This record gives sequence, structure tokens and C-alpha cells, in this order.
Amino acid sequence: MTDCKFVSEAEVIDFARHHSGVFDPAEALSVEEIGDGNINFVYRVYAAGGNSVIIKQALPYVRIIGEGWPLSQDRIRIEAEALMLEAEYCPDLVPRVYHFDAARSAIVMEDIGAFENLRHALVARAELPLLGKQLGRFCAETLFHTSDLYLDAHRKKEMVARFINPDLCKITEDLFFWDPFCDHERNNINPAIWSEAEALWRDEPLKLEVARLKHRFLTCAEALVHGDLHSGSVFANAEGTRIIDPEFAYFGPIGFDVGSLIGNLLLNYAGQAQLPGEASECEAYRAWLLDAVRELWNTFAGRFGELMSSSTKDPSLNLPAYREAYLADLLRDSLGYAGTELIRRTVGLAHVLDLEAIEDPQQRAKAETQALHLGRMLVLERAQLSDIDAAIERVRQI
Amino acid sequence: MTDCKFVSEAEVIDFARHHSGVFDPAEALSVEEIGDGNINFVYRVYAAGGNSVIIKQALPYVRIIGEGWPLSQDRIRIEAEALMLEAEYCPDLVPRVYHFDAARSAIVMEDIGAFENLRHALVARAELPLLGKQLGRFCAETLFHTSDLYLDAHRKKEMVARFINPDLCKITEDLFFWDPFCDHERNNINPAIWSEAEALWRDEPLKLEVARLKHRFLTCAEALVHGDLHSGSVFANAEGTRIIDPEFAYFGPIGFDVGSLIGNLLLNYAGQAQLPGEASECEAYRAWLLDAVRELWNTFAGRFGELMSSSTKDPSLNLPAYREAYLADLLRDSLGYAGTELIRRTVGLAHVLDLEAIEDPQQRAKAETQALHLGRMLVLERAQLSDIDAAIERVRQI
Repeated sequence: MTDCKFVSEAEVIDFARHHSGVFDPAEALSVEEIGDGNINFVYRVYAAGGNSVIIKQALPYVRIIGEGWPLSQDRIRIEAEALMLEAEYCPDLVPRVYHFDAARSAIVMEDIGAFENLRHALVARAELPLLGKQLGRFCAETLFHTSDLYLDAHRKKEMVARFINPDLCKITEDLFFWDPFCDHERNNINPAIWSEAEALWRDEPLKLEVARLKHRFLTCAEALVHGDLHSGSVFANAEGTRIIDPEFAYFGPIGFDVGSLIGNLLLNYAGQAQLPGEASECEAYRAWLLDAVRELWNTFAGRFGELMSSSTKDPSLNLPAYREAYLADLLRDSLGYAGTELIRRTVGLAHVLDLEAIEDPQQRAKAETQALHLGRMLVLERAQLSDIDAAIERVRQI
Repeated sequence: MTDCKFVSEAEVIDFARHHSGVFDPAEALSVEEIGDGNINFVYRVYAAGGNSVIIKQALPYVRIIGEGWPLSQDRIRIEAEALMLEAEYCPDLVPRVYHFDAARSAIVMEDIGAFENLRHALVARAELPLLGKQLGRFCAETLFHTSDLYLDAHRKKEMVARFINPDLCKITEDLFFWDPFCDHERNNINPAIWSEAEALWRDEPLKLEVARLKHRFLTCAEALVHGDLHSGSVFANAEGTRIIDPEFAYFGPIGFDVGSLIGNLLLNYAGQAQLPGEASECEAYRAWLLDAVRELWNTFAGRFGELMSSSTKDPSLNLPAYREAYLADLLRDSLGYAGTELIRRTVGLAHVLDLEAIEDPQQRAKAETQALHLGRMLVLERAQLSDIDAAIERVRQI
């Protein structure tokens, strides 16, 4: 099963040349391994003239661990199919897939190197005027068009089967919804917030609501979610946005995707106050982050509502009152999953630069504590937060 | 695809003899076609000495319509696998499967002819002291053990894929959740309740709640539900109960099964007052029906709660507060689906003997109107009905 691994740079280059159609046959190509994730191998193949492609290869184990942590290679098929489906509805927001090679477990795709990783851009307080709108549109288009509102009953069920993704779902099931709520060996906790973590583990009302959110994650086959929509899966600059890496895609709750994005913007919000820089700049950026959350939600809900009204195929779900009720449910779910993202990125296994960039542990503890309190509030109060403005107002108060 | 059809009685007998292991090789066998459903062929093969088996065969179309209404033969594999799974947890409540033959699209199974079809038994006011308890136990055992509470994360997802059942789900999606709520050509409406039906089609609050229930039916992969748990799928007498025909099985909301049973008991309750007989007998039987609903729910919830407490594998879902909240959610769902069953059996395509046995259309209209009002109340008030006693009290008031 590991035979598909590229054994030389020449092999990678040859693969890129034959499966992308972007290079002149005469031009010399170079290759660099650029994977900064933990799981896969990612190569950039480029010509001196400027053309380039990305090759992403999934081996049957986790890259940074090795063969001791096996992981189904089916994830790369899922990623390729999800990217192509997303491209049907937002071709401007995802990298183009040139080729998927099942034998190699590899995708050859467009190089989006002109965009910056969103997490780094947010830490650097980049101005991203299109971000909220484009993320909202991505969620609305991809999630509506893979839901029962739009899909034919047979096609939906066939797709559910095709996107069964147990290995990657299990990672989320554990890392989001269990580890952070107990003293788990996988957790990574700043000693300065140990008492906050302990309070979390004893917080029965919180754990009840997290159990409800986990149960929805396990059972609610609402739409083909990206499933890993954190800032590291988004590339952006002032001109545009690209969303990559849907290897966690499966039929799950719509709010999980929207909530992951909101949670990541709020993680940066929590971190900003402790990062170096002018206080006024910091405050202005935090205000922009909350505006981006609002714009993301309003764009998502506006477009999703339009699509429900214009394109819902099932007449029994095409009622004005149901549209309103459904969008209200999606907001509650999204806020809940935003809360679990805030918590798991603070005391769970996988941390984020938005907080880790704060060097002093005591300073970082302040931001981490705010992230935990924001997460807890969103999970517990989501049923009462009737609109995005009310939610943002509560965020400001914490 | 229709080549698998048995072409002679001798062929049926030969098949039964070779695949059941219940007959003496020397004994002469007879066969009768006993299918009273609309979709499949059902044969009873029996010896003069008393031994017998049932053969159920699914052809690639609906039996009473013919090849003009195609239907996937995969339903018989699903039925066989569901019966065998159910037998792991309630072997005393389902017919034993002797053999499943994929090439023949046929199941050879235990003959449960000693039991009476529950619908006929209820119309005849049979005393069934075990019914509520056994139905409650069936639901608790089969649904708990096929849910995320119990199953390993990988096994659950593999089972979801194996029980994708689009053809039969589509029947339910249309007949339960759409036809009855509009003036659909498939509907079958007693002219004497036409104005009641029209009121239904204009009832926006009801249609909103039915849309929510339909969306859950479409998206909530909570457990392997039987999917067609009406009185015609239950056989019973004073000594026991057997549940058959899980060809609609798929991963759906637990409340759909429990609610179908409750709905069917309440359909009989609505019919009884207009059926011939002594008023006191009628009242006593109606009181027994409500007791059976209570016993069904209490047995289900009691056993399901015990199983949650003793056998939930996922620690994040094994919290006392979550058990309580989850059972409360299951009650709400069950009452909602009971309501849709009451409505669709009254104005939709497929009617039930519990109401059809009332010969006079005006008399029948009274029972039908009560069934519609009960259905509407359950759908609309389910969120406020905090326990089964409160629900039964509201039933009594209508």
C-alpha cells in the first residue's frame, strides 16, 4: 500500500508534467516538498517561467508519525471528489483539480501560492475585505447544493454512502468533543490555565450541551460538509479567497462548517489583545474580526435563504416559515460548534498560532482564558442567541 | 432480473425443503401464496405433520402494480440483514431466518402463523397483555444497539452505508410527509371529511412542524429503524409478539419507529368509538389502548435508559443529564411521528382497517376527524408534552 509513494524528485516532476496540462513540454521543472500539515505529503512543481502545480499525496499513515498511525488512503479520493463538487458551485473559491490518480493516491491541482494562509494573515492583522463575504458564499453554495433541500432523494443517499469517512470523522469525534472535557493525555494545556481546564472538566451543563453537539456530529447527515474548515484550510489576500483540504468531508451538520470558521475568527480575536502592537490597531482589528463574523453569517444566511426559496426541490420543505426556522436552527448549531472549536484549540491536542504566537505564558493564559469563556458562552447560550448581532454583542461582553 | 421468480409450486417446495432444515426429507409438502401486502410474494410451505416455513420473495417491481412500478430488489437483502440483527437482541420477538438467497431474492423464515396480525386483533378488541411491554423492549433493544451510543464509530458508518435504502425511504418521504398536506392525486379522502382535509392543507403551523419532522427523517441517521412499524408488521396473541417485514429499514430517527407504533394504537383508539359493540366494552378497550401506549413508552424509555447507563461505549455521551435530555427528545420525536402516521392513514393513500372497518361514511368521518385532530395535536404540541402521561391526558381531551 505504500508502494505508491514517489521515490524521487524526477518521479514527482514526471507525474506533474503528464497530469496537469499546464507546462510547456520543453520547460525544465523543479520540485519542493511544502507540506506544513501533519498528515500528507505536498509537493510544488514549478517551471522557471512561472507555471506551477501542487501535488498532494496521501499515504496510508499519518505523515509526522509514520506507519504506527495508519489512516485510510480513501481520504484523498474524498478530497478530490469534494473539491470537484465544490468547484461546481464556487469555481472561484477552490483550487482547480487537474487530475486525481487513485493508484498514486494523489491529486494534481492548481497552485494557490499567490494567497496567504489565513491563519498567518490574521495573526499579521492583514486587511481582507472580501473574506467574510466569500467564506459565507462558499458555505451557502456548497452546503445547500449537497443537502436534501436541493438533491434528488436517490442522489443524496448515494452521495452519503460515497462520503462515509470514518477514519477522519473519528479524529474530530475525539479531539473536538471528548479530550478537552476530561484530563486526557492527548491534551496540551498551558499550566497557567490549569484551574480553568479543571473547571471545564467539572462543568456538567457544558458537557451536556457538548454531548448534544457531538450526537449531531455523529448522526446529522445534513449536507456534504468540508469538515475541517479552520483558518489553516483557507488561503486569502485582499483580492480573493481559496478553500482547500476537504479530506475530512462527510455528510454532517451544516453548522459544523460555519461554526468552525466563526470559531477560528474568534480564536484570533481572543489572541489579538495579547499580541504585540499598538492598542488602537489591536482594537481596530478585533472590531474588524467581529465584522467579518457578522458578514460571514449574513452572507451565508442571505444566500442560503435565497437558494432555499429559489431552488428547494422538495415542496414540503419549501415554506417561508420553514426557511426562517431552519436558518435559526443553523445559527444555533453554528454558534455551538464555534464554541467547541474555541475550547478544543485552547486545551486540546492541536493548538493554533493565533494563541501560540503569544510568547509569554501568562499573557497567553489571558487570551486562552478568554477563548475558553467565549467557547463556553457560545455552547451554553446558543439556544437563546436569536441573531448574529446578539451573539456578537455577547462576545464583546466577555 | 425477474428470472428469479418461482415458476411452479414444486420449485417453491423444493426451495423450502433445501433451505430450512425443518422438514423431514420423507414428508410431503404443500404450498399456498399468502401475501396480503402490496409489494412482495409470500408463500407458506407446510407438511401435514404440522411443520411449516415462510418464503418471502421480492421481485424488481411492486406486486400489485406489476413491472410498471419498479422497486429495488435490494430491499430483501436489507430485510434479511435487519431480521438477523434484530434477532441478536430480541430473538423471541422476530421470526428466525433460516436462509437468505440473494440469487432468488428470497428469505426462508420461521412461520409465525400462530400469532394474529395485530391490526385485525385490535379491531376485534383482543386482549394482549404483553403487547406494550414487548413492543417497548423491541424498540429499546434494536434501536439502542444500532445507535452511536453502542456501536463502534467505524462499524456504525459501515452499517449506515449497508442500509442505504432509497427506494423504500422515498415511499415514506412522499406518503407520510407530503401527500396528506396537499390536494394530491394519490390521496384517498372520505368526502365527508373533505373540509377537514382542506383545513389541513391550509394549516401553515402544522406544515412547518411536519417539514421539521420530514427533515429529521431525511437527515437523522440515529439508529437502524425498522421503518414500517405499523400494526400490520406486528403479529401478536396473549402469549407473545412477533415483529416482521423490516424491508424499509435504514438509519433514521429512533422516534420514527416508536411513533409509528403509538400512532397505530391511536388509530385504533380513534376507530373504536364508531365500531359496533357495547359502549362499556368500547370504553374499556380504548382505556386499554392508552394503557398500552403508556406501557410501550415506559418500557422503551426504561430499558433504553438502562442500556444508555450500562452499555454506552462513548464516554462523552454517557452522562446522567444527557440520558435524561436524550429520552425527552426521543419522546418529542415519537409523538411527532405518531401524529404524522395518524394523519397520513386518514387522508393519504394507504388506509387502515381500524378506520375502514367502520362501514357508514358518516360514522367513519367522526373517527377520521378524531384521528386528524389527534395527529395535529401531537405534531404541534410535542415540544410541550413533557412526559407520556401528559400526552395521554391530551389524547383523552380530544
